[in-house]
Amino acid sequence: MTRYKAIISYDGSLFSGFQRQTHARTVQEEIEKTLTKICNGQSVTIHGAGRTDAGVHAYAQVIHFDLETTRDVEKLRFALDTQTPDDIDFISVEEVSEAFHSRYNKHSKTYEFLVDIGRPKNPMMRHYATHYPYDLDLKRIQLAIKDLVGTHDFTGFTAAGTSIENKVRTITKAEMTYDSDRQFLIFTFSGNGFLYKQVRNMVGTLLKIGNGRMPVEQINLILEAKDRQLAGPTAVGNGLYLKEISYE
Amino acid sequence: MTRYKAIISYDGSLFSGFQRQTHARTVQEEIEKTLTKICNGQSVTIHGAGRTDAGVHAYAQVIHFDLETTRDVEKLRFALDTQTPDDIDFISVEEVSEAFHSRYNKHSKTYEFLVDIGRPKNPMMRHYATHYPYDLDLKRIQLAIKDLVGTHDFTGFTAAGTSIENKVRTITKAEMTYDSDRQFLIFTFSGNGFLYKQVRNMVGTLLKIGNGRMPVEQINLILEAKDRQLAGPTAVGNGLYLKEISYE
Repeated sequence: MTRYKAIISYDGSLFSGFQRQTHARTVQEEIEKTLTKICNGQSVTIHGAGRTDAGVHAYAQVIHFDLETTRDVEKLRFALDTQTPDDIDFISVEEVSEAFHSRYNKHSKTYEFLVDIGRPKNPMMRHYATHYPYDLDLKRIQLAIKDLVGTHDFTGFTAAGTSIENKVRTITKAEMTYDSDRQFLIFTFSGNGFLYKQVRNMVGTLLKIGNGRMPVEQINLILEAKDRQLAGPTAVGNGLYLKEISYE
Repeated sequence: MTRYKAIISYDGSLFSGFQRQTHARTVQEEIEKTLTKICNGQSVTIHGAGRTDAGVHAYAQVIHFDLETTRDVEKLRFALDTQTPDDIDFISVEEVSEAFHSRYNKHSKTYEFLVDIGRPKNPMMRHYATHYPYDLDLKRIQLAIKDLVGTHDFTGFTAAGTSIENKVRTITKAEMTYDSDRQFLIFTFSGNGFLYKQVRNMVGTLLKIGNGRMPVEQINLILEAKDRQLAGPTAVGNGLYLKEISYE
């Protein structure tokens, strides 16, 4: 057995998320189908560092898998890149020790979230950003977003009914920049792990703060009260990008 | 009869171009279907300022059409925007005189062409830019592109066998800028009209010049010799955007 780590990118628009499901097209299923073909029918399971939801994109998702034979990594990368569908790219493949696990090895993740605040809206971006054509005070967002940095219990920003018990996570970077050429807000969040829908709920709340319908202090209120009801709506998945994963 | 002028945008990825064809999805067909529905079954024909090819996008295509009754333009715009498919947006609708014709009234057009020179390639851009991962000397492109400005016979840059006889056109602006954040080249061309595949052939030639496989003087050679064989390959349609149309 040889273990391989791969960095992949994908356009999430036509996927029902990363993780295999019955009767839905997923990233995992497409890659496993291709690996099985490359391995002459031998079934291969892949493990991803994170499970992106339907419509969520990735610039650098990390996966690992075991093959019975040792392969030339560049030939393997090329075969996977060209034989998977157009919306999945294989950026790199390397051999790693059997101790490596894409999900359980300690790592930090960076997510980006794009909000198109342009008028008129741009049909080319309909699968790649959330369109928000309402009034926004960007300074309010930039003030509020700072309160997310640090180690907090993020219960108030995750979907109700999540089975994970420990909801304490550390965010090392949380910022919003404005790209005036494209009229986009770019939210960036880095941290040691994110709960289900956490990034989308943080963005939904920050937009409500920017629009003046919640006070700037709302982030702290939600972190203290640990109450999902106090947060804004979940921003749609197609604005979200898994940007980078760094292992310790 | 009342004549309406509309500015529309569309994502060309899933269209076989603007102009109606049998057995192919086109922008014209989708809009005419919607107009016919809005007009209780009365058939309506639209006229576009330019016929974009398969895969070509538009930020501001201009169309006109005649309706038997006079309508509130904002209600009409909203109905068209919401009832056409997601990949077509109606930016504005206004009443115009019957003398207005989107195609025959004098106008200038601006096209943009996006080339993704990033490595690795970005799967989110596969329908929205041409990926060119080869060596490029951007200064050579910036020198060569200037030779396109002016009034020239563009026979060497159009598809062979075009039925239009007069191939003299005036280009008022031709420039290339580099977006280092996104690792994109953005080509911009403005002029009083463009021949079939002209922009894509100019970009294909400029990339070959940038890659050192054609001399910087090649643009002038092609304009003088009027020979399509001397030009580079046709860049693919999905990097091309109809950006703006200005009437005199």
